[in-house]
Amino acid sequence: MPHIELDPQLPGIRALFAFRPETADPLGRLAEALLRGPNSLSVGERELIAAVVSKGNDCTFCSSSHGAVAAAALDDGFGVVEAAWRNVDEAPVSAKLKALLWIALAVRESGQAVTTELVEAARAEGATDVEIHDTVLIAAAFCMYNRYVDGLATVAPPVQEAYRGMGEQLLEQGYLRL
Amino acid sequence: MPHIELDPQLPGIRALFAFRPETADPLGRLAEALLRGPNSLSVGERELIAAVVSKGNDCTFCSSSHGAVAAAALDDGFGVVEAAWRNVDEAPVSAKLKALLWIALAVRESGQAVTTELVEAARAEGATDVEIHDTVLIAAAFCMYNRYVDGLATVAPPVQEAYRGMGEQLLEQGYLRL
Repeated sequence: MPHIELDPQLPGIRALFAFRPETADPLGRLAEALLRGPNSLSVGERELIAAVVSKGNDCTFCSSSHGAVAAAALDDGFGVVEAAWRNVDEAPVSAKLKALLWIALAVRESGQAVTTELVEAARAEGATDVEIHDTVLIAAAFCMYNRYVDGLATVAPPVQEAYRGMGEQLLEQGYLRL
Repeated sequence: MPHIELDPQLPGIRALFAFRPETADPLGRLAEALLRGPNSLSVGERELIAAVVSKGNDCTFCSSSHGAVAAAALDDGFGVVEAAWRNVDEAPVSAKLKALLWIALAVRESGQAVTTELVEAARAEGATDVEIHDTVLIAAAFCMYNRYVDGLATVAPPVQEAYRGMGEQLLEQGYLRL
């Protein structure tokens, strides 16, 4: 049960956005800029970074919903997401994306955990400054969204299948209409 | 040295805002809504929550700068900030703010660490749903800002005194002009 009085019809962050539109606005704009703005990383790659960080933080709502968006955006669908959740190095993604995912998982732990070695490894696979920047900020942002959603004990459907429609809708509409 | 090429004249998050204006915009709006928007928690109380979480995350730039804003906003100045950094329960702040600071420190750990007991303790001291919500989101947001600033290894002046002017400026101007 949520820690504060929320609309029981709305799951996860949707209930929080409805509760506090003043903060929903910049939070939605941030997600849109990070996950949908013009970028050399594809939408699927960025959503996968969000899903992997959220899984690391054990956030059911965020990992399931962004896992569903990534699955809808990536060619191989949910298999890629599940593989990345299990082990980044064995996921069927590019060497550059693997290196960026390792940076994201370091950010999840702490800012100080991002070492020069991790950054150089990504650069060796062709990652640009903007890609490294955006990876760090996507990971940091999901350390916020995850804590927000779980810190207020919002409701999350427990079954991945329940997020498929939400994933397709978020892929199509983005985050400004939440 | 920063992990990406940043303006060496700009410390901490200012260099990142200059590097990527697309994300600076919603990040600035979020800080403004959380720390300066209309609220039953004072600016000093909200800045203190930000400073305590940032200190817990060992983020020199964020803890020093928001500590300086809190010191400029609170009556007893930097003594309150230093006391809260040492031990929330011994800081000269209201029982309600102490209970909210304990919620914020739980969020710092993880969303799941926010227990019903912590929330009920804050409610017993008169905290409202909006205050509990905003405390959780301020703490979560600083888990992002801290990781962003340190994950890209931005430059931070090491001495607290260096942040006094920045604190007074941020108190006066807010976060939309960064």
